[in-house]
Order: sequence, then C-alpha cells, then structure tokens
Amino acid sequence: MFSLTVRDHVMIAHSFRGEVFGPAQRLHGATFLVDATFRRPELDADNIVVDIGLATQELKAVLAALNYRNLDDDPDFTGINTSTEFLAKVIADRLADRVAAGRLGAGAHGLTGISVTLHESHVAWASYERSL
Amino acid sequence: MFSLTVRDHVMIAHSFRGEVFGPAQRLHGATFLVDATFRRPELDADNIVVDIGLATQELKAVLAALNYRNLDDDPDFTGINTSTEFLAKVIADRLADRVAAGRLGAGAHGLTGISVTLHESHVAWASYERSL
Amino acid sequence: MFSLTVRDHVMIAHSFRGEVFGPAQRLHGATFLVDATFRRPELDADNIVVDIGLATQELKAVLAALNYRNLDDDPDFTGINTSTEFLAKVIADRLADRVAAGRLGAGAHGLTGISVTLHESHVAWASYERSL
Amino acid sequence: MFSLTVRDHVMIAHSFRGEVFGPAQRLHGATFLVDATFRRPELDADNIVVDIGLATQELKAVLAALNYRNLDDDPDFTGINTSTEFLAKVIADRLADRVAAGRLGAGAHGLTGISVTLHESHVAWASYERSL
Amino acid sequence: MFSLTVRDHVMIAHSFRGEVFGPAQRLHGATFLVDATFRRPELDADNIVVDIGLATQELKAVLAALNYRNLDDDPDFTGINTSTEFLAKVIADRLADRVAAGRLGAGAHGLTGISVTLHESHVAWASYERSL
Amino acid sequence: MFSLTVRDHVMIAHSFRGEVFGPAQRLHGATFLVDATFRRPELDADNIVVDIGLATQELKAVLAALNYRNLDDDPDFTGINTSTEFLAKVIADRLADRVAAGRLGAGAHGLTGISVTLHESHVAWASYERSL
Repeated sequence: MFSLTVRDHVMIAHSFRGEVFGPAQRLHGATFLVDATFRRPELDADNIVVDIGLATQELKAVLAALNYRNLDDDPDFTGINTSTEFLAKVIADRLADRVAAGRLGAGAHGLTGISVTLHESHVAWASYERSL
Repeated sequence: MFSLTVRDHVMIAHSFRGEVFGPAQRLHGATFLVDATFRRPELDADNIVVDIGLATQELKAVLAALNYRNLDDDPDFTGINTSTEFLAKVIADRLADRVAAGRLGAGAHGLTGISVTLHESHVAWASYERSL
Repeated sequence: MFSLTVRDHVMIAHSFRGEVFGPAQRLHGATFLVDATFRRPELDADNIVVDIGLATQELKAVLAALNYRNLDDDPDFTGINTSTEFLAKVIADRLADRVAAGRLGAGAHGLTGISVTLHESHVAWASYERSL
Repeated sequence: MFSLTVRDHVMIAHSFRGEVFGPAQRLHGATFLVDATFRRPELDADNIVVDIGLATQELKAVLAALNYRNLDDDPDFTGINTSTEFLAKVIADRLADRVAAGRLGAGAHGLTGISVTLHESHVAWASYERSL
Repeated sequence: MFSLTVRDHVMIAHSFRGEVFGPAQRLHGATFLVDATFRRPELDADNIVVDIGLATQELKAVLAALNYRNLDDDPDFTGINTSTEFLAKVIADRLADRVAAGRLGAGAHGLTGISVTLHESHVAWASYERSL
Repeated sequence: MFSLTVRDHVMIAHSFRGEVFGPAQRLHGATFLVDATFRRPELDADNIVVDIGLATQELKAVLAALNYRNLDDDPDFTGINTSTEFLAKVIADRLADRVAAGRLGAGAHGLTGISVTLHESHVAWASYERSL
C-alpha cells in the first residue's frame, strides 16, 4: 500500500458545549496543522499516488472555507461541537468529494482511502480515516 | 475510524542483558516521548474520541509510576529487558486497564483500540498496538 | 552564556485591526507553542540556570491568564493588536515580574535575560528578547 | 502488534517526466528523511522487534547506494520516475531482501512487515507498506 | 528585540568541488527548509515586526529563482561551492534587497536585521545573520 | 555571521543532589539530543563554516565518552550535578579542545564560537555558548 501526505494549517476560533470540555467551553481558538494522506494499492501511470501539486491546492481550498473564521458562526456546524476529531472528518469528507469530482486529476480515481490528522498542539492530535 | 493522541514524556534509567545490546548493556537512561493513541469507529455524544483532559491525566499517572526511576529496580520488570517496544506495551496495557476501570470517563467505553509509541531519540521509536 | 528553555502552549481567539492583516481581521484563533528561555552567564549553586520545575510552573501560570480566552475581551489588550510578536513580549514581561517577585526561586535572581518565542504554526513564529 | 522505526536521510538529484510534475521536470534534488518501520506480532527472545543497531546499519547500507547521486543516471531506474512514493518501495524492498538474507539477525525472521516513509520536506511525505 | 520568522522550502541539485566534500562532489541534491527571520527593536504601527503575508510572499519569490534547479548551471554561482551556509547568505542578501526596495511594506524599513537558516536534513543546518 | 549546526544524541543515567531537583534526585536517565553549532564571521576557502563530516565525527567522538553510561560513576563529574546546562558546557568545551587540536581541519581555526544545545525532552532544553 502506498500513501502520500501533504501538510497545511488553519487558524480558527470556536467554543465547545459540555462539561467535559472545562475551560474550552469559552470562546478560544486553535492552529490546526492538517496532514491529508491519500492511499492506493498501486501507483498511477506517472508512478505517483496523486499529483502533489493538486493535493496541496485542493487541501488549501478545503481549508480556506474554515480559515480565519469563528466556527461557532458557520451554518454547517450549528449546534455541533467542532472538536479536533470531528474537523478531521469534515476535511477528509470534503477532500473525498473533490477526489470524486475529479479535482485531484484523473489518476486520483485510483485512490482507495484518505486520512486526515489535525495537530492542535505539540502534545495532542486527532485523526479520521476513511475509504474512497 | 477516529483517533486521538496525547503526548507526554518520561525519564528513566535501565540496562539490558544480551550481546545484541552492545554498550546498552551498561546502566544508561532515556527520555521517552510517549504518544498514546485512542481509537474508535464513531465519536461519543460529545463529538469526541475521549476526554482529552482525562486522557492526558491518566497517561501522566501511568508514566508517574516509571518516571525518574531505575527500571532495573522495579519489581514488575525483574529479569526483563525493558526495551522501548516492551515499555510501549506496558504503557498501553496499563492505559487499557484504566479505560476498563472507567478512569477515562463513561464515554471511553466506546474505545476499540490503543496504540502507544515511545520515541527514544530523534532517530528511533517503537510502538505497540492493541484492541480493547 | 547559559540558557534553559521550557515549552508549553496556549489556545486563544482574537482578531486584528488593519488592512495589513487581510482575512485575519476576522475573529479567528491560534495555538501558540510558547518557548520561554532564561539566560545567565554562570550557573547557580545547584549547577543550573533555574529550577526547571518552577520555570514550567510559572510559565503555565502566566499562560493560564490567556488560555481558552478571546483576547479581544481582555481589558489588558483593549484597542491593541495581539500579534504573535506582541504576545511574546507580554509573556516575557510577565515572567520577568515573577522572577523579580521570587517565584522562580532565590537562585533565579542571577538571571540576566529572558526570551519568549511563540510558534503560531509550523511555518511562522515570533520572539521577544529582553534583559532582566 | 509491535513496531520499531529507525530514521536516516539521503540526498539525491533527479528529474521527472510528465506534465503533472511541472517545474520538477527540471533536474533538481531532495533530502529525504527515511523512516524504516519493522513490524511483528510478538517480540523476540531479547524482548525486541529487531536489533536496532543492525536495523540502523542496514538502512544506512541501503541508502548508501542512492546517497549523493543523480538517480537519472542509475541503471536501476532507467525510464522510471523516481517519485518519493516509488523510492519508498525501492527502499522497503531492499530492506526486505536484507531481512531474508539474515543481515538483520536471526531474530528478524519473525518480522511480518516493513513500512518506509520518505519525507521530502516539512509539508510532504510518502510511504510504502508491505508484508514479509 | 523582536523577531518574526517564516518557513518555506526549496529543492535543488548541485555538486561541490574540493576533497573536503567527499561523495558530495558528485551531482546530488537537497531539500532546504528555509527559515527567514526579521528583527527590529520596536514593533511598527500595526504592532508587528513585518507583514507576515508579504514576508511569506517575498521569501517564496526569492526561493522561486532557485527552486527545482541545478545550481551548477546558475550563472550567479559559476565556480562557487553552493554550500548550505553560502546559500543562507544568498537568500538573506536577496531578502535584504527586497526590504530596501519596499516589497515587504513601508513598515519594514524599521527592520534592523535578517537571519536565514537552511536545514539540509534533520541533523544539519546552517545560518547567516546580517544587519540591515 | 555564519554558523553550522550538527545534531546527534546520547543516552545516559544520572541522579541529582539538592532539594530543588525533587524526584530527579533518584537515579534516572535521559536521551539528550545534542546540537553543536560552530560560528565564524567569514567562510573558509571551501566556502564552508567547517567540514560537516569532521564536525559530525568529532561530536560523535565527544559523545561516545558519555554515551550509555551512568554519569554518577564518571570520575570527571564526582560531586557535580550533571544538569543539562552543565553538560552543554562540558560538550562545548571538549569540542573547543578538538578544534584547537586541529581535529576539525585546518579551516576550523577560523571558528570564533561554539554553542551546544541539549534537548532533554520535547518541552525542555538548555544551551551553553562560548567564544573560541
């Protein structure tokens, strides 16, 4: 199995609801380092997993919809705790949509899985992994 | 599949028995960066894998039993090579016990796996992965 | 010259005023990895720069006043752009006050300088350096 | 499942053929940080995954055949795009050959898998994972 | 003293002349992680060292002239060993020219120094520091 | 001013004397990532700060005298707290001796300073800086 990962980052504000979150119930923020991993069992005709330029560009496009925003005001997340693990899934699913729409190139139709890891600090990160 | 990882560290002394270890047969030591990863297929009612505060606290508690010690003197490890990979398993198993005992919260009963990675330097690390 | 550095982190929300900030004029947030460095020309009687336990504890105390907050609501920063470089100075100055107040131990009176670096992402960080 | 990873690096020149590579069609180069991971379900008689000294030595030997070279001139890669993902497989396969040849020690015959990750920068890396 | 650093990377081929370089006399390559640091004693009217967007953009522009190239063919470097430390100076000087030309904004005229660090691997890096 | 840094690591056991050290008064250990930085105002005839091969080799030689040892048993450190900051000075001084003895090459006589940083964990490190 092969994989390719590209990293970018996003800076957001949000708050959580639920006692489990303690002081994180207050409005605060995070820089998330975002690692998007694309997997496939065999390489494509160019001997790659996916065009690294397109992967970088599409990840940046997905993150642009979140970047420099207060997620509490995003209608997509009304009433939802935008936890690190939840956001990993949001980003993975949006990347999967872009793969299906052909935005990562024709060769990307051979991809079989996507994982997204969000690092919220040097001591905590969360991931979501899915099939394509 | 979702996962959440928290990082801490521990500083121990130990020695190894066996020619394969070369100069590491002498009493020496290590700082281990310890990454504990918790996995589950679906998020809990709070939209998280596990309470990150409790995960951090329980990892610290597990490490406290090892920290600033000579593992050669620990009765749990008599006659055992406390290799990086072995210690990864010790820490994973002790975390699993704490999950079972409810110390990571009620939601943690939905966890299905734990992995622990110990980085012994910038050029070597070891992991142990298990089900719950 | 000797130095000792301890690292912690803080997660905040804020916004900026001024065209130069572009989309960062919107309410957003950041995780700052905070490295606090203490300097002195000679080590103290214990052969250290400063008690690493107290340094860690006092850095955490300084960060607690900022952590999980919207800095736009902090009366200390009314009308001020809480840029990464500005916050590095705030934290350095507050640490300096604690050194002067004796909270880092008697030996810490031999410290001659403090630097604070805030990493806002894997591709950007800022520092402030001052004398004591 | 246990694993052990060792890291080294290699500095090579190469060029790519195919529009997808854009400016990387020109002769350029890369430092690859190379992480070689060895896996097995149970530890060996010494309580380890593999002799870390031998693992480090054999990875270095595999990399020596690539290091400080222009891969466009390597007869093994004639007409092949030496992408990061492809090189991860080359290195994994060559390590697997060395495991089979006994160069990682007798205990290494219990290994069941190898993964190799090549970091081409702080924002991109690729992996190949195989069974033994 | 305040500073702001931005990171980018560049992938180049080159070779060295001189016995001291051993196998690096062969054509090979490198990924350089490039950290550009801007310094000044006081912040500007926006409470920053320099516009981080412009700093990132201008560093990328400086690196674009080197990226995906064989430096042995660059007329600027004819007969010159393009060592990591030398390239750090090249990049710092070119950034200094851009500061002087106003490309980092009017506020950047308050900058008093630039440092550039090039990481050639996880175990080696070089820096050049100059005044403005 | 130019600098070149090389990184290696060392794994030692030791204990501290003094209440300030708390549980670190017990025999424990550490992995120190060791960064040795060499400085000079102008590059040598080969356009480098120092031969990176020799710098790496001599740092390794200095560390070999400490590696896989209990520093409490080292006659050089009898009655001395081998703190991270103190060890940074020991290593810097021993490297300086090797520069003076010509082991880093004839060009190294142009070096004007050495700094050594020891990372004891991902959250704490110490440095010592001296002239040559």
